[in-house]
Amino acid sequence: MRVAIVMGSTSDLPKLEPAINILKEYDVKVDVRCLSAHRAHAGLSAFIKDANNNGTEVIIAGAGMAAALPGVIASQTVLPVIGVPISGSVLDGVDALYSIVQMPPGIPVATVAINGGKNAAYLALQIMSIKHEALKDKLLYFRKDMELQAMKTNEDIIAKYN
Amino acid sequence: MRVAIVMGSTSDLPKLEPAINILKEYDVKVDVRCLSAHRAHAGLSAFIKDANNNGTEVIIAGAGMAAALPGVIASQTVLPVIGVPISGSVLDGVDALYSIVQMPPGIPVATVAINGGKNAAYLALQIMSIKHEALKDKLLYFRKDMELQAMKTNEDIIAKYN
Amino acid sequence: MRVAIVMGSTSDLPKLEPAINILKEYDVKVDVRCLSAHRAHAGLSAFIKDANNNGTEVIIAGAGMAAALPGVIASQTVLPVIGVPISGSVLDGVDALYSIVQMPPGIPVATVAINGGKNAAYLALQIMSIKHEALKDKLLYFRKDMELQAMKTNEDIIAKYN
Amino acid sequence: MRVAIVMGSTSDLPKLEPAINILKEYDVKVDVRCLSAHRAHAGLSAFIKDANNNGTEVIIAGAGMAAALPGVIASQTVLPVIGVPISGSVLDGVDALYSIVQMPPGIPVATVAINGGKNAAYLALQIMSIKHEALKDKLLYFRKDMELQAMKTNEDIIAKYN
Amino acid sequence: MRVAIVMGSTSDLPKLEPAINILKEYDVKVDVRCLSAHRAHAGLSAFIKDANNNGTEVIIAGAGMAAALPGVIASQTVLPVIGVPISGSVLDGVDALYSIVQMPPGIPVATVAINGGKNAAYLALQIMSIKHEALKDKLLYFRKDMELQAMKTNEDIIAKYN
Amino acid sequence: MRVAIVMGSTSDLPKLEPAINILKEYDVKVDVRCLSAHRAHAGLSAFIKDANNNGTEVIIAGAGMAAALPGVIASQTVLPVIGVPISGSVLDGVDALYSIVQMPPGIPVATVAINGGKNAAYLALQIMSIKHEALKDKLLYFRKDMELQAMKTNEDIIAKYN
Amino acid sequence: MRVAIVMGSTSDLPKLEPAINILKEYDVKVDVRCLSAHRAHAGLSAFIKDANNNGTEVIIAGAGMAAALPGVIASQTVLPVIGVPISGSVLDGVDALYSIVQMPPGIPVATVAINGGKNAAYLALQIMSIKHEALKDKLLYFRKDMELQAMKTNEDIIAKYN
Amino acid sequence: MRVAIVMGSTSDLPKLEPAINILKEYDVKVDVRCLSAHRAHAGLSAFIKDANNNGTEVIIAGAGMAAALPGVIASQTVLPVIGVPISGSVLDGVDALYSIVQMPPGIPVATVAINGGKNAAYLALQIMSIKHEALKDKLLYFRKDMELQAMKTNEDIIAKYN
Repeated sequence: MRVAIVMGSTSDLPKLEPAINILKEYDVKVDVRCLSAHRAHAGLSAFIKDANNNGTEVIIAGAGMAAALPGVIASQTVLPVIGVPISGSVLDGVDALYSIVQMPPGIPVATVAINGGKNAAYLALQIMSIKHEALKDKLLYFRKDMELQAMKTNEDIIAKYN
Repeated sequence: MRVAIVMGSTSDLPKLEPAINILKEYDVKVDVRCLSAHRAHAGLSAFIKDANNNGTEVIIAGAGMAAALPGVIASQTVLPVIGVPISGSVLDGVDALYSIVQMPPGIPVATVAINGGKNAAYLALQIMSIKHEALKDKLLYFRKDMELQAMKTNEDIIAKYN
Repeated sequence: MRVAIVMGSTSDLPKLEPAINILKEYDVKVDVRCLSAHRAHAGLSAFIKDANNNGTEVIIAGAGMAAALPGVIASQTVLPVIGVPISGSVLDGVDALYSIVQMPPGIPVATVAINGGKNAAYLALQIMSIKHEALKDKLLYFRKDMELQAMKTNEDIIAKYN
Repeated sequence: MRVAIVMGSTSDLPKLEPAINILKEYDVKVDVRCLSAHRAHAGLSAFIKDANNNGTEVIIAGAGMAAALPGVIASQTVLPVIGVPISGSVLDGVDALYSIVQMPPGIPVATVAINGGKNAAYLALQIMSIKHEALKDKLLYFRKDMELQAMKTNEDIIAKYN
Repeated sequence: MRVAIVMGSTSDLPKLEPAINILKEYDVKVDVRCLSAHRAHAGLSAFIKDANNNGTEVIIAGAGMAAALPGVIASQTVLPVIGVPISGSVLDGVDALYSIVQMPPGIPVATVAINGGKNAAYLALQIMSIKHEALKDKLLYFRKDMELQAMKTNEDIIAKYN
Repeated sequence: MRVAIVMGSTSDLPKLEPAINILKEYDVKVDVRCLSAHRAHAGLSAFIKDANNNGTEVIIAGAGMAAALPGVIASQTVLPVIGVPISGSVLDGVDALYSIVQMPPGIPVATVAINGGKNAAYLALQIMSIKHEALKDKLLYFRKDMELQAMKTNEDIIAKYN
Repeated sequence: MRVAIVMGSTSDLPKLEPAINILKEYDVKVDVRCLSAHRAHAGLSAFIKDANNNGTEVIIAGAGMAAALPGVIASQTVLPVIGVPISGSVLDGVDALYSIVQMPPGIPVATVAINGGKNAAYLALQIMSIKHEALKDKLLYFRKDMELQAMKTNEDIIAKYN
Repeated sequence: MRVAIVMGSTSDLPKLEPAINILKEYDVKVDVRCLSAHRAHAGLSAFIKDANNNGTEVIIAGAGMAAALPGVIASQTVLPVIGVPISGSVLDGVDALYSIVQMPPGIPVATVAINGGKNAAYLALQIMSIKHEALKDKLLYFRKDMELQAMKTNEDIIAKYN
């Protein structure tokens, strides 16, 4: 299992590091890149060409402001591309959200929440799990565990307030 | 290959029919359902349980206004869930977009454009193509064809204006 | 008199604690729970079933981002459900407001202001007061007192500036 | 059972008529008024004083633009007040939504969706049902019926598309 | 010359104090009040009745969130009412702006910028200057002085950067 | 009594004609002009200079999009300037509202609702009425009449629905 | 003088045709192209390479939704790129505006109004006029003529209303 | 080569200083001015008249709130005017963005990102480079260097995470 994580700027890194960590916990090979659609045009195209041929299964792309990166990647691959709007500017990520989610027909980007690095990783895992049965089991276990912890938190709240 | 398309209301159907048609063109078995998260709670849960065990690979969920449907489905499956915000209300789909894309960590929804039924289908196909090699070839052919048609349109424009 | 307060995450607690305190001042039995619609699906349904049968009269639900919680609760009860949008994300609670207030016909959620925990409590009290006469008297006293304090503040301002 | 429905302008009537009809179906006595907070100040106060003493249990108030009506009513009663933002202006009801939902602490307004006349009626019914047991049974029946119709619609969709 | 400044809450005071100070510099008698439209209904009406008969020429009203205050005052007087939206809530004053500026026909509120206390004072002065010739001369002097200071600042910038 | 109404484009005229008609009903001399801040710079300045010296008491300025007109006029006069945001563009007048209401300290514009031509006229009348006693009486009569008509409408609604 | 006009889709054409016509009136050679950044990646790059070497002086790019086109062009040229947000989607062009104007440092796009095809042409002309003196004279003449027509319209308004 | 940078207030300076520095690095003569459209009307007009005749090739104008400055300058020159929306107010620069970008036909303003001082400078340089060949070479070198640094950053990221 192999996932590429591309960011437009190193300032996007703190919002994407959780994705890197989650994927590694699931033994996914992660290729991290910083390749702006606007500043590293040729390098980005070369990278996408590689990703199309080296067994990469999902590409995660995070970017802020006029966040062209996820769409530009999506236009050069049929791998599923997950877009993460980043809240760097004064517009709090609404600019990035609109720039990423409003893709024209034929070139989809799977958009997650603003700064939603964690969910980008979980979505990538869920996508890969339709092929990798063992991964599906792990995700079901993770969900069960998340639910148990949620119920444990609920018990704490009950103990505290009732 | 099997995809479920769930809508919250029959008024969402016109925006999702393109997805049904595209998936059928690619020989995907499509299960269409109208199961509101709010009005058909038990029926929806039963359906998700089925989908988790009948070979469904992707679930597409379209809904408008306080669009809880994609998230509620996502909370009961580890299959990839694609959310389509529908623009039924006076808020033009911004309410649905926020209700679908801003999911909490652990339960992702892959959100496409407002009324983006077509891209929901293409995203589902791209996701399944990481498992089904023949599908990937078809998608690459589709992209190549789309590019050819785009270049043909460009020729028409050149002929008309220059 | 019995009111349930459900939050989607412990991070919503600071905005809901004022509601707990106000209700307790009025001798209301308060059941506090942390049961995410997305992470504690089964636990939440069990809780709602209980609330429907244990004399609970109003349910307050607070949640942020794609705040499905109030609507999901509302779909499983005919008790009045009060929704409190919480401002946790970069969108400052507009996402939660839209996710809570824009409910489809048949399943209403009584929405209060973003972070409006206090008013959720007062609204619950006003609702219960149509049944409990003594509570209505207390609320009329509270309003009278609030007005007296407002007039006292006005006197202070007059003394300071005129 | 008695509910008052107050609108700020006759142009709000089409959005509130569904509420009138629903309430009458449930044998609720409905007092309909057109009393703008800005143009009928004295008449509105007189009406609220009456409502506070004639057995009215819930007040529904619909208004557009700078929609002060629900809040002004709420400030003169401890009856539960339900606010319906109306989409009359070029701002599509966002102005009315903000004017109604963002109430200060102590004076809550139970806000429903923009143009959500139907849900205002259902919310009023749910509120009164905590006092009137027979009404609760009728609402549970309504919900069950709504679910049956939703499942019937689902069957139609299945028959059409699968 | 007499101006009333009414605020909905003491938390609005820091944004309105500049208005008090400016008006006093111009020898205007200023009546400052804290009278919420929602919490001090009767006191507010009494105050407006006084203002209508004591020589007050302009009323400035500042409020945040569902800012009904300026409109409620405007509905009880034909004195010019200036509304100042205050940015207290998470919505940064957009809620207050819409609640104040979108008044229905017949009851205008002269709205200034969010937190625009200073301009509320200058607008009040300009309004009164159509009656008080000496005030108009002072305002023309103020404008001339403001322009001179602007040109002086420009000289400083030229000296620093060119 | 003399009021100038300036519009940025003839397309703004339908929203401002109600203001012209109302003012004429009150025997106000009305000077109507179409002088864009951007296209008729010199002509606009000449007009403002005239208005400053010919007994004009209020200037109403309506404009859409990047609506600089009210602010540019306000910067060249100490007469009260009323700004009317017009909803010509795809942004439904929010662009014009922000361009008009968010004036910097020292140069106020009294902003009314989007397309609020009527209220611009009433605000102008209220402003002039602090100087012209007879006008104040007429406005009080208008308000009383508006209230009577509102109560009459209320009677019609009562007759129809109760 | 040579200007390229690139659109992302033929549906953008009606908003850009005014630009074509204006430029041709000024004897500018206009190259019109329909080359989506997402669907015609290679064709677009080839076109930009040509434009960089065939004497093109300005590139105008119009696009809607996630409007990556202007930025993608800007990243491959140092010619001035003018971006025109198009209002095709339910978001009325705000999505396109944010996608075009919020460019990262180093790669500017000169953004004009939503659907502002005409101003894209005038901006291109103004830019070229710093090099072509005769063009500057024509633009000054156009401005003078626009002003004369504005003053003529003003005369018509004066004749009609005063 | 000569560029004028005009700001509406010294508080805009921190966002425009990067533009000054970049232009000076490219040996551009920079005229910096602080001339509010509203407070320094005459001084601004005098400055524009000078700029039209002293060899200035581009004017950069930065302003916040109801940011009339860029448009007012644009109306008095056919030089290209670049507008920089500044985020001073509680509206985070959306008010300034709308006030600057939504110009009427005939008077364009080339708008860059909110607080986009750097890109205003680069856009000015790109505009002047259509006349000054040596500048174009420098810009191509800058782009190449930016790309090299981007690729260097990418190498660092690869080294750190893979």
